[in-house]
Amino acid sequence: MNAIVLNCTLKSSPAVSNTEALARVVTGALESEGVETEFVRIADFDVKPGVTMDEGNGDQWPQIVEKVLGAEILILATPIWLGQISSVAKRVLERFDALLSETDDEGRPVAFNRVAGFVVTGNEDGAHHCIAELAQGVGDIGWTVPPQAFTYWNMGPGPGPDYLDTDHGHEWSETTGKAAASNLLAVARALQATPIPAPPS
Amino acid sequence: MNAIVLNCTLKSSPAVSNTEALARVVTGALESEGVETEFVRIADFDVKPGVTMDEGNGDQWPQIVEKVLGAEILILATPIWLGQISSVAKRVLERFDALLSETDDEGRPVAFNRVAGFVVTGNEDGAHHCIAELAQGVGDIGWTVPPQAFTYWNMGPGPGPDYLDTDHGHEWSETTGKAAASNLLAVARALQATPIPAPPS
Amino acid sequence: MNAIVLNCTLKSSPAVSNTEALARVVTGALESEGVETEFVRIADFDVKPGVTMDEGNGDQWPQIVEKVLGAEILILATPIWLGQISSVAKRVLERFDALLSETDDEGRPVAFNRVAGFVVTGNEDGAHHCIAELAQGVGDIGWTVPPQAFTYWNMGPGPGPDYLDTDHGHEWSETTGKAAASNLLAVARALQATPIPAPPS
Amino acid sequence: MNAIVLNCTLKSSPAVSNTEALARVVTGALESEGVETEFVRIADFDVKPGVTMDEGNGDQWPQIVEKVLGAEILILATPIWLGQISSVAKRVLERFDALLSETDDEGRPVAFNRVAGFVVTGNEDGAHHCIAELAQGVGDIGWTVPPQAFTYWNMGPGPGPDYLDTDHGHEWSETTGKAAASNLLAVARALQATPIPAPPS
Repeated sequence: MNAIVLNCTLKSSPAVSNTEALARVVTGALESEGVETEFVRIADFDVKPGVTMDEGNGDQWPQIVEKVLGAEILILATPIWLGQISSVAKRVLERFDALLSETDDEGRPVAFNRVAGFVVTGNEDGAHHCIAELAQGVGDIGWTVPPQAFTYWNMGPGPGPDYLDTDHGHEWSETTGKAAASNLLAVARALQATPIPAPPS
Repeated sequence: MNAIVLNCTLKSSPAVSNTEALARVVTGALESEGVETEFVRIADFDVKPGVTMDEGNGDQWPQIVEKVLGAEILILATPIWLGQISSVAKRVLERFDALLSETDDEGRPVAFNRVAGFVVTGNEDGAHHCIAELAQGVGDIGWTVPPQAFTYWNMGPGPGPDYLDTDHGHEWSETTGKAAASNLLAVARALQATPIPAPPS
Repeated sequence: MNAIVLNCTLKSSPAVSNTEALARVVTGALESEGVETEFVRIADFDVKPGVTMDEGNGDQWPQIVEKVLGAEILILATPIWLGQISSVAKRVLERFDALLSETDDEGRPVAFNRVAGFVVTGNEDGAHHCIAELAQGVGDIGWTVPPQAFTYWNMGPGPGPDYLDTDHGHEWSETTGKAAASNLLAVARALQATPIPAPPS
Repeated sequence: MNAIVLNCTLKSSPAVSNTEALARVVTGALESEGVETEFVRIADFDVKPGVTMDEGNGDQWPQIVEKVLGAEILILATPIWLGQISSVAKRVLERFDALLSETDDEGRPVAFNRVAGFVVTGNEDGAHHCIAELAQGVGDIGWTVPPQAFTYWNMGPGPGPDYLDTDHGHEWSETTGKAAASNLLAVARALQATPIPAPPS
């Protein structure tokens, strides 16, 4: 079983990512159950705007999507800006659009029988809405969203510290993240044991 | 296997409900696979505002939630008003909040190992957002959201006809609704065969 | 100049409303500028579902809408449930829908030349999204939304205290609320001095 | 009086932009009232991710923001992807974040006394939600949002033609776009005549 985290921070490596720090709680829990995990920081790649599989001109999305399709578990991790997902996370959803027309040997959208979860951090309010946007986006494409498959951190009201600046609320975010890992893995296993067939067309 | 549709139209019976008409495409497909289906039109009941299991004073939510917990498949069906879910659908999500603290014998939220899908109709644009709001809401509470577990109908731009006023686009909405039924049933069966355990606390 | 607050808490009077408590910061600032203010707690009235001006059968919306149209400044105040506006706030937006077809003597939608602002409180994350939903809803109907015309309070991550349970963050929410009052009043005055004409039809 | 359209299509020039085509209805109406208008297609520029005024390394946002601040009227124009605003539009909102801390000589956020409107086109449903996201984002930063300051086009349900592929619904979108132009101009003039002062701090 493989899990991939697409870290949609605005910052390229090696800048510290609060979003990655919280996502590591989820991947740590998955690893302790034998899942192999990998992080991809999207801002380190040249992901072109567009809605095809390969936008050319050095577009590095194809190598990312290959990793995504190698994983049964997808974790979209995003910071909050203006109460919304990052432009990098939005770019990822947009590029997923091309997967709608990709099917496997049995005619199923390629995202079928995979699960998706979400990690959201901010220095301000907005996590529930980010989760709504991401859940709807990946559900459109073909991922299954397990129950309570997310964790988040922020400390309102108004702008405040970043996740790594304080211990406030870490316990809740970590417990919730471990539950998310458990739920992602459980549904991934259920779909592996009893796969969703191609829908009637 | 049982499915329940909570029809969140603003209109009480016996007024014709466009939302029900489209939802019947989904339930028809489920019935042909042997699933028992039931419709509850929320506007026919006195569902009080609040976030407890029973708000008293003639609150009829308890009898609805009992039906919801008798079904492995939940379908939330809502009209679109101002691009958003109806106040009746919002009331349902709000009342679901109390389910967060209800657990089964194994310590799992009672909504675990159930699936949810969505039917949205409008005389104007807004379906994707309605699906996002509903998916996030039920995911918070414990339902699993299968891939492409929705159908919708509207005909933009601007205000236009209702679903039952025209044949425009019915084919897409019906095909999509039958696919939603297939995906809901497949994931419900997968969770029945391989249930999600209680998350670590 | 008159301002009306529609308090969309789920609780009827005389229960304490955290949302009202924060809204009073905004109305206090308005009053110090000579604005007359009034609160209406929607849960104290029987507001029927529907999208007409009067749904009959004891519908008390008509008396509320009369107050709304007597005020140049509207403040929608809502708690957060599941990261979203309350069902009561959603009901208010829905009932506003009927105002779209009401025009004044010069053919303008009746909400024109009025301003709207927002107050949001929660024991969990979701304020930005609530503001987005409310702003889009009232903008559709004809209110103008001044800059930074909101305040909110919550303390993430996860469920936490209510506004009145703690002093955490009150300073930010109060400063922001006073700025909202200033911006609402400034734009209301600008529209009074230079009214928006009827749009070309 | 100046208006600027930020066209957030995913396509670089000279590809045909449906979003631009509809936005030209709004700018045409503004021009007939003597407003000078300019289009900037964001995808033609290298706008880096980040939340500062200048992200360096060839970041072309500074020249765009200069044009934005030279205009009393801002029009954000976006296509719909997965029911949501484009990643390019999201990038624009994100870069606006830095304007929060920029103030004029009187201590007002630089976006104060400017108005913003929205143009949304899609081959599928999602316009109301795009308008909600954009309105909340620019309102946070300091723009005023006039009533009915938008137009949109799409033709549901499901994927369908683009705006320029059909005449369906153009009349509604054009009438609505001309009304948006009228409302944007009216509120811009009102704020010019009676400017919003700096809020109390």
